[in-house]
Amino acid sequence: MTPEEFRRAGHAVVDWIADYWATLPERPVTSAAPPGTVVAALPDGPPERGEPVEAVLADLDTLVTPHLTHWQHPGFFGYFPANTSGPSVLGDLVSSGLGVQGMLWATGPACTELETAMLDWLADLLDLPKRFRSAGAGGGVIQDSASSATLVATLVAVHRASGGRWREGGVDRRYRAYTSTQGHSSIEKAARIAGLGADGVRVVEVDPETLAMSPAALRAAVEADRADGVVPTIVVATVGTTSTTAVDPLPEIGAICAEYGIFLHVDAAYAGAATVCPELRSGHAGLEYADSYCFDPHKWLLTGFDCDAFWVADRGELIEALTVLPEYLRNAATESGAVIDYRDWQVPLGRRFRALKLWFVLRWYGVEGLRAHIRSGVALAARFADRVRADDRFELAAPHPYSLVCFRLRADDAVNAELLARVNASGRVHLTHTRVAGRHTLRLAVGSPHTTKAHVDEAWTLLSAAADTLLPH
Amino acid sequence: MTPEEFRRAGHAVVDWIADYWATLPERPVTSAAPPGTVVAALPDGPPERGEPVEAVLADLDTLVTPHLTHWQHPGFFGYFPANTSGPSVLGDLVSSGLGVQGMLWATGPACTELETAMLDWLADLLDLPKRFRSAGAGGGVIQDSASSATLVATLVAVHRASGGRWREGGVDRRYRAYTSTQGHSSIEKAARIAGLGADGVRVVEVDPETLAMSPAALRAAVEADRADGVVPTIVVATVGTTSTTAVDPLPEIGAICAEYGIFLHVDAAYAGAATVCPELRSGHAGLEYADSYCFDPHKWLLTGFDCDAFWVADRGELIEALTVLPEYLRNAATESGAVIDYRDWQVPLGRRFRALKLWFVLRWYGVEGLRAHIRSGVALAARFADRVRADDRFELAAPHPYSLVCFRLRADDAVNAELLARVNASGRVHLTHTRVAGRHTLRLAVGSPHTTKAHVDEAWTLLSAAADTLLPH
Ligand SMILES: Cc1ncc(COP(=O)(O)O)c(C=O)c1O
Ligand SMILES: Cc1ncc(COP(=O)(O)O)c(C=O)c1O
Repeated sequence: MTPEEFRRAGHAVVDWIADYWATLPERPVTSAAPPGTVVAALPDGPPERGEPVEAVLADLDTLVTPHLTHWQHPGFFGYFPANTSGPSVLGDLVSSGLGVQGMLWATGPACTELETAMLDWLADLLDLPKRFRSAGAGGGVIQDSASSATLVATLVAVHRASGGRWREGGVDRRYRAYTSTQGHSSIEKAARIAGLGADGVRVVEVDPETLAMSPAALRAAVEADRADGVVPTIVVATVGTTSTTAVDPLPEIGAICAEYGIFLHVDAAYAGAATVCPELRSGHAGLEYADSYCFDPHKWLLTGFDCDAFWVADRGELIEALTVLPEYLRNAATESGAVIDYRDWQVPLGRRFRALKLWFVLRWYGVEGLRAHIRSGVALAARFADRVRADDRFELAAPHPYSLVCFRLRADDAVNAELLARVNASGRVHLTHTRVAGRHTLRLAVGSPHTTKAHVDEAWTLLSAAADTLLPH
Repeated sequence: MTPEEFRRAGHAVVDWIADYWATLPERPVTSAAPPGTVVAALPDGPPERGEPVEAVLADLDTLVTPHLTHWQHPGFFGYFPANTSGPSVLGDLVSSGLGVQGMLWATGPACTELETAMLDWLADLLDLPKRFRSAGAGGGVIQDSASSATLVATLVAVHRASGGRWREGGVDRRYRAYTSTQGHSSIEKAARIAGLGADGVRVVEVDPETLAMSPAALRAAVEADRADGVVPTIVVATVGTTSTTAVDPLPEIGAICAEYGIFLHVDAAYAGAATVCPELRSGHAGLEYADSYCFDPHKWLLTGFDCDAFWVADRGELIEALTVLPEYLRNAATESGAVIDYRDWQVPLGRRFRALKLWFVLRWYGVEGLRAHIRSGVALAARFADRVRADDRFELAAPHPYSLVCFRLRADDAVNAELLARVNASGRVHLTHTRVAGRHTLRLAVGSPHTTKAHVDEAWTLLSAAADTLLPH
């Protein structure tokens, strides 16, 4: 494809996306088609001769968009959001067009340096401790996901706990990771990948009211493990748990980690974005204890997947754990020690220029715009929670410090599951569920910049109407 | 950003990329700026108020593009290529715009199904064994990189070798991975991440002529390890090694793996793309022994980073090794068993809709177009190798079955290093180096669809002229 062909087709694709976004509110949020629908509609193989882009765009309309879950829909309230925005799409488009592979500083100096700068900007924006800035011993990097950030933290922690033997000798003792019963499943997955096994994760009890990790239970677990010859290696504390956005008490947890020399990783995958607002930073108290921290701009900061921002307090230790330097990657800049080679900060070797989308987002919105976005989500969640609170048939299942509301009908699990199924079947909104204290609970998470009061109110109206038909009169 | 604002700004960004591509041949391939240049030129933090996209585009021209290594430049001959193409950029743009997070089938049915179909199309195109198709027990998935594919293969292999104990119990014995002295550094990295340690990798000798793994040396290593109580777990064989594109003999290696029940992963990161051409498939002989296989469309198949195509013969085993199912991800489709949830096929949880870029590429080029692209690269490499062969001052350091030529001046390492530095300093071309039989060797890898005879000839002219000044007369 020549540059001129690209220009023409590119305009058409941009228009296609603009039209998709403009018509999104009228589409059903999810698809009702059964498994296999798309595969069955596709030809068996690629065409012998090339086809024009227009043919593919036409098929997008018939084969793809009718069979999607529309994550950017203003009525999408499921999971945690994964919202993108115009500037993010454009920054990513520039990244695709440049096609730079930034594994080393030398293979894309601006790719590396813009990333370092963006992570420093974000650290300022979130008011993270100084130790995470690149001007000191720390620094930030973009990982694809919070899962990968947790894996990397786990590897560095094992490296440290082994006194450096792990790099050559592998997992040579029982190393243990700790998280609360509310910790994300990626923590177990990271422990398994790192060779600690699912048994290498100890799940610590939470306070039954706040669902935050109990420091006393953590201490007891650590002490029992030490007595047992197990090496307490990493604690993953969560700011904003997946289920209910509970916040683990970092000051107490951090003190325990410091006392026993345990690596502390803080997973703020979703809630970290909120801390662009000074009034939403209380969960960061105690963060100066953390060895690493991550949050996902791809969740609630208007940046398209994949973009997890991950910081460490000691980049030397991280690099020592992950570096391998074959001959073909040797170069003068690396040898000088004056540059960052981000391949040593992650699992994969290659990397795309993901800092561009952050740069576009941070500049288009500015600090004010980002704060307005977060505040809008928090206010809409509060508005929805007010509706729940005002209706005796419903109850809130947990506090809602951010933009997630957990609630249920005062009825059994089956009725709540049916409630969820019915409102989702409307195609107007999409909510998901969790279990809180063993009970089926609905989750409504606000995240899209296009979600307004009307959408949240519509969700409430649908829920309330479904409750009418579900509850005895 | 509204859809209309996006439309306007999107056209501007598309134009910017078209102009970048059109002017690429005149730009120096690499930047001469010292470390810190970009960081120093950036403001200390994001703006308080938002800025227009035009401001960012202007800064791209002054701050970013002058300080890049231009991987899409027709004179870029370094490493292995990482070439994108217009249709790939457009497919990825659609992916960004849709903003679908395809961790589960339910969170994006078309995202999952198009991926399954594209991996089946590719399997046909490369004529991979039937066992890798989704219609049987196998199937394909897009990983971000060949590094991650090797990691996943390693995890499945350890899972199998432990009889399933690894999932819960972790690394409980000495498990060993095998690759040749020419295997990629990601193999050691995967072993370290998986907790086997660098000592868990045994580096097998190669045939000194072909640089392909010696089956006899592999057998000896496996037998010695078994005698030693070590569990031979995975062999990573390479089709197209990073250094010289050597091809490990899969029929012999596969037979050894079958004999000892060792998992066989085939890493064809770069050379796999060549097998879209029937005449370039000899390296795949013996592939029916493989438990998994990967290649990088993001290297030599016109698809932008990140896109590694990874297949397994037994998807059940893969899923068993990697799955974790928290409550909040439970859904009817998953429970039915009728769908693929790709989060269980990879390290991260979230995933973007990467199949779109493959779909756009496969349809725009068609089978014929892809073959023409590969054949052009192979022919240009052969043309360059002819020049080297015809000049007594130079020698070829290895065979060139694909589009990489390894060569050197008949002179010592320092002279060859200086030769490389001088031609790269021209800014017209960019080559990198390796070591072959301990000697500093230059690599010229052709990959860009925009590289023509003229660019390869220019590289030769520069090399020849630099040799004139470097060699005694
Ligand atoms: C607290 C928390 N951690 C980690 C993750 C995993 O996110 P990712 O898809 O970025 O790996 C999630 C996802 O929802 C999460 O809520
Ligand atoms: C043979 C081989 N395997 C693996 C890799 C790693 O590639 P990736 O960046 O996709 O991890 C490379 C990179 O050049 C390679 O040549």
